[in-house]
Amino acid sequence: MSDRLQSQIAFIIEIDKLKTILRQSVLASDPGRRENDAEHSWHLALAALLLAEHADQPVDPLKVVSMALVHDLVEIDAGDTFIYDDKGRLDQEERERKAADRIFALLPPDQGTSLRALWDEFEAGCTADARFARAIDRLQPVLLNLATNGLRWRANGITADRVLARNHVIDDASHSLWRFVQGEIERMVAEGHLPERP
Amino acid sequence: MSDRLQSQIAFIIEIDKLKTILRQSVLASDPGRRENDAEHSWHLALAALLLAEHADQPVDPLKVVSMALVHDLVEIDAGDTFIYDDKGRLDQEERERKAADRIFALLPPDQGTSLRALWDEFEAGCTADARFARAIDRLQPVLLNLATNGLRWRANGITADRVLARNHVIDDASHSLWRFVQGEIERMVAEGHLPERP
Repeated sequence: MSDRLQSQIAFIIEIDKLKTILRQSVLASDPGRRENDAEHSWHLALAALLLAEHADQPVDPLKVVSMALVHDLVEIDAGDTFIYDDKGRLDQEERERKAADRIFALLPPDQGTSLRALWDEFEAGCTADARFARAIDRLQPVLLNLATNGLRWRANGITADRVLARNHVIDDASHSLWRFVQGEIERMVAEGHLPERP
Repeated sequence: MSDRLQSQIAFIIEIDKLKTILRQSVLASDPGRRENDAEHSWHLALAALLLAEHADQPVDPLKVVSMALVHDLVEIDAGDTFIYDDKGRLDQEERERKAADRIFALLPPDQGTSLRALWDEFEAGCTADARFARAIDRLQPVLLNLATNGLRWRANGITADRVLARNHVIDDASHSLWRFVQGEIERMVAEGHLPERP
């Protein structure tokens, strides 16, 4: 076996660990179980493919899907940071950067560099592709919460004002998806599933 | 919300169920837990991106990754069929076709048709893209078994001759990946992890 294939196979086995990193979201289809990062990444990748037409600026589907597939790999070392955990978010960047240094270095250098660049682009969020991938990364857990009447928001004491503040970045990539989220959060408040504010 | 976006969101919530469909493989990183279809699809999609250079014929990465993301959606209705379950495989095609009819019809017609065509192409396995996606779909559980010294093969009484017979399709897409699998199975037999034949 060539060194190159050996590195690729070792990387593919290493990233299996993403399946053990639990998120705060629960499954829409089984609210008794928390979702893990691998499931989330698959869901996000397919959602991004299907919703690409709603991006305000044209996006490259392969790049957006590739970002979705790799964006959480750093959590193998750094763990998941709940987006409403303001304390955990303080050192998140440093923890994730160290993780990226280790994990992408397992690949052959050209592929490691290329995946790292993709992850850096996602993290910086300055291109249309990264903005859209980040928007769908926010939309996916919102959809799981909508499907379970805000189960995890209520469990964590998250109110509608915080959901809107924290997910407002969706509007940077897609006005229509953001209007959808706003409408659904208004509906959740009106139906009594979610308090408007603390 | 437009009817179009409404159908897309309903589809994205529906396919969440893929996270509840268990496969025969266990995680390399947690052999006490069986892998589900969403985790497998994510792993397969990223592995296909990284290993595309080993395809004997050029492949379209976006198409192969898209196939990986959708190829198991039919199992939401049809369930997972173990590739060594010769009885279960008898009516697998019909069960999966019915499932495809229902699931892809949830999408707006143009997207439903396009994803269905992608799934049909994967199933037929007649193009270079489909052959490669199918090869990686076989390779991924082989890698999980290699990483756990053949745990699930032994648990199911699968011997090396059947592993080689059932996964030989990898050779239709990539001689180098198939040589790698052959070498690893030989090593497993030599090290006493896997009986050569019944």
